[in-house]
Amino acid sequence: MNESLLTDFYQLTMAEIYIKKGLLKKASFEFFIRRRPERRNFFIAAGLEKIIEYLKELKFQQDEIDFLRERGFSKELIDYLKKFRFQGDVWALPEGTIFFENEPVIRVEAPLPQAQIVETRIINILHFQILIASKAVRCVLSAPNKALIDFGLRRAHGFEAGLYAARSCYLAGFIATSTVEAGRLFKIPITGTMAHSFILAHESEEAAFRNFIETHPENPILLIDTFDTIKAAYLAAKLYREYLKNGIKIKGVRIDSGNYIELSKKVRKIFDSQGAKEMMIFCSGGLDEYKLKELTKNDVPIDGFGLGTLIDTSSDVPFLDCAYKMVEYDGTPKMKFSKGKATLPFKKQIMRYLNKEGLFSHDIICTSKEAENSNNQGLLVEVMRGGKLIAKGEGISVIRDRVKEQLSSLPHELKSITNSCAYDVKFSSKLKGAINSEVKA
Amino acid sequence: MNESLLTDFYQLTMAEIYIKKGLLKKASFEFFIRRRPERRNFFIAAGLEKIIEYLKELKFQQDEIDFLRERGFSKELIDYLKKFRFQGDVWALPEGTIFFENEPVIRVEAPLPQAQIVETRIINILHFQILIASKAVRCVLSAPNKALIDFGLRRAHGFEAGLYAARSCYLAGFIATSTVEAGRLFKIPITGTMAHSFILAHESEEAAFRNFIETHPENPILLIDTFDTIKAAYLAAKLYREYLKNGIKIKGVRIDSGNYIELSKKVRKIFDSQGAKEMMIFCSGGLDEYKLKELTKNDVPIDGFGLGTLIDTSSDVPFLDCAYKMVEYDGTPKMKFSKGKATLPFKKQIMRYLNKEGLFSHDIICTSKEAENSNNQGLLVEVMRGGKLIAKGEGISVIRDRVKEQLSSLPHELKSITNSCAYDVKFSSKLKGAINSEVKA
Repeated sequence: MNESLLTDFYQLTMAEIYIKKGLLKKASFEFFIRRRPERRNFFIAAGLEKIIEYLKELKFQQDEIDFLRERGFSKELIDYLKKFRFQGDVWALPEGTIFFENEPVIRVEAPLPQAQIVETRIINILHFQILIASKAVRCVLSAPNKALIDFGLRRAHGFEAGLYAARSCYLAGFIATSTVEAGRLFKIPITGTMAHSFILAHESEEAAFRNFIETHPENPILLIDTFDTIKAAYLAAKLYREYLKNGIKIKGVRIDSGNYIELSKKVRKIFDSQGAKEMMIFCSGGLDEYKLKELTKNDVPIDGFGLGTLIDTSSDVPFLDCAYKMVEYDGTPKMKFSKGKATLPFKKQIMRYLNKEGLFSHDIICTSKEAENSNNQGLLVEVMRGGKLIAKGEGISVIRDRVKEQLSSLPHELKSITNSCAYDVKFSSKLKGAINSEVKA
Repeated sequence: MNESLLTDFYQLTMAEIYIKKGLLKKASFEFFIRRRPERRNFFIAAGLEKIIEYLKELKFQQDEIDFLRERGFSKELIDYLKKFRFQGDVWALPEGTIFFENEPVIRVEAPLPQAQIVETRIINILHFQILIASKAVRCVLSAPNKALIDFGLRRAHGFEAGLYAARSCYLAGFIATSTVEAGRLFKIPITGTMAHSFILAHESEEAAFRNFIETHPENPILLIDTFDTIKAAYLAAKLYREYLKNGIKIKGVRIDSGNYIELSKKVRKIFDSQGAKEMMIFCSGGLDEYKLKELTKNDVPIDGFGLGTLIDTSSDVPFLDCAYKMVEYDGTPKMKFSKGKATLPFKKQIMRYLNKEGLFSHDIICTSKEAENSNNQGLLVEVMRGGKLIAKGEGISVIRDRVKEQLSSLPHELKSITNSCAYDVKFSSKLKGAINSEVKA
């Protein structure tokens, strides 16, 4: 699908006025999270790959142009859109970077109508991918050393959400997704077991298990909660012993309902006493980081988890208070004073400082100019210049490794999924001056 | 984008086994909402148009086939998918129909592998559109006679969510969307005002307002909270009087932050005392049905609302507990007993009964066979037979009118957005028998 009309009507109205009135100078807009929800101590940058694809390919097709002409837009705008190619510069946090409230994730510097038209889709892309990566990483923190798999497409909000949730979960540390198209597009491992309907389509559970094992002899996993989980566990152990003789090793079972702690303990005992010690136990259904925390303490014998709805909708925090705001126009810093929604002027950069242990100590948000005069390297890097890509695209494994590495530098208290904890983000003297002028205003 | 790989990996694994083992008979699956969340007394059926489009166009492309072959799927599955066209029957509630817990919204009857492969995308489509239509209608109930407009694309979960949220809001009773592409695809009215960045790009708020009014003289709406809402209201009233002399009528103002009750009252007074009685007041920012309820009582002088994030993410209930489950295979009724997730066997139909006042009195869920022997008309209608469409597509205005009509028959207590209230849904004697057998199992 062509994405050029994935924008708010007012973006086009404003662009038209900018064109008619000659407001075509370079504008700088920054995307940031305005306020941290209590249940998110930090965020994971995600979405840049898609942003770049969007900006590079953005072009108005003839049928879209015709639609806008019929809507009454002027010849000036229509002519502008016919030739539209994004020609701006983009600075961004590399995907997988940990960041905090008020810190710019991306900066777009482009002729005003261009920077304006792309606002809606840029927010739409970044908001969702950050939302899910920042949710999924909490599951990873709650269940270290457990295999976490994304099962979320079916209840994600539309297909694009399902696809990018799979990607966001994977870069946050999940090991696979069940979504075939996400595996294909993003080169993520794909996995899956069987559904209850598969069992029901057979004359008996045993017939279903046998068909599955014989057709998919490589590491089959059996779903055991369709009728009676305990009975099915005995059956699975029996089949494990039987097929092992034929060189087929059943990998384990999945439990999709009931009391996971109780059931997994009982099933583990059955397997251990019935000659199926190597069989693994997976659980799925209604899981999130809070439930994972319960299920991974006290040696509950669950080896991996399928996570879906609660992660792909980020159900405890289904949106973030984020914005894409103009910070400079034609070299002049800009800010708005709207109550509770004031913005900070100036193109900005983020400086991160580590303590002696190598952990994040604090960040300083400063102006780009202040950063240029500093000896330190800012976190935002230039990725596009004049509409051309100047940084190489990163493979998803590079991003995934970055998350892992960044987590190893994140102070322990910020990793809590239950305690709210604010990281120390300071403003440079120049920005403090701007904030003070705002308070007076 | 081609949608055939928008499915879970296990659907393909299972389809492969069905094909190899000759499990190709007709299976019937039903989609329903398993449990009503406390804050939803009823649901609005939505998504059928997209379901039909998906099923009609479903076809595996060469690159998708190649991907699956590389993944190790067998020649039998590959050959099957190469020729795949959906050949099933579909029964569904017409979009806009009010429905309740446990009631089937759609029934797919198709050769087992087909009915299985489409599961993931069918849930993905229906779940989201029902979720948003059922959220948006609560806003309509909270603010009768107010103009409600969807502003949600930017924080919707991906673009498909943004587009279908616009459609779901419109059919629930909103009057327009700000999303250009949704307007184009679904023939929904599009509207919009201006952003804060537009004001900031100008030398002054007045210059911005004048440029806007002069370039868009048809019903302009001015955003007045960038710096000081009260001062901007006086300015707007002045401009109203001035431009009126030139035949330009400023329609109103939008307030996007602050205390809407206080501000709207002050702004109303300013307009009424400054010769701008006809100017309207719109508010946006952080609104949902609960806030609308506050803002529409006690004669708060707000004429319309822009709603975004909280509606397009259905933030108070970001997902529904729904399922697509096999109810019959090859004529034999099927059910699973999984704890808390048991399903009801038999192809089903819904009978709705009205009381003397013409309001919904109760529904009876019965088997399709029971329905065939009844004199009453069931709510589910056949829309596809053998993969061919047999019902004409409905225009969105027909669906929108249906919602309005259905709401007029909905008992008052079910319309509450704060009190949980269960509608009376009974099971037929045949289904009761099945439930009893399950309880014993």
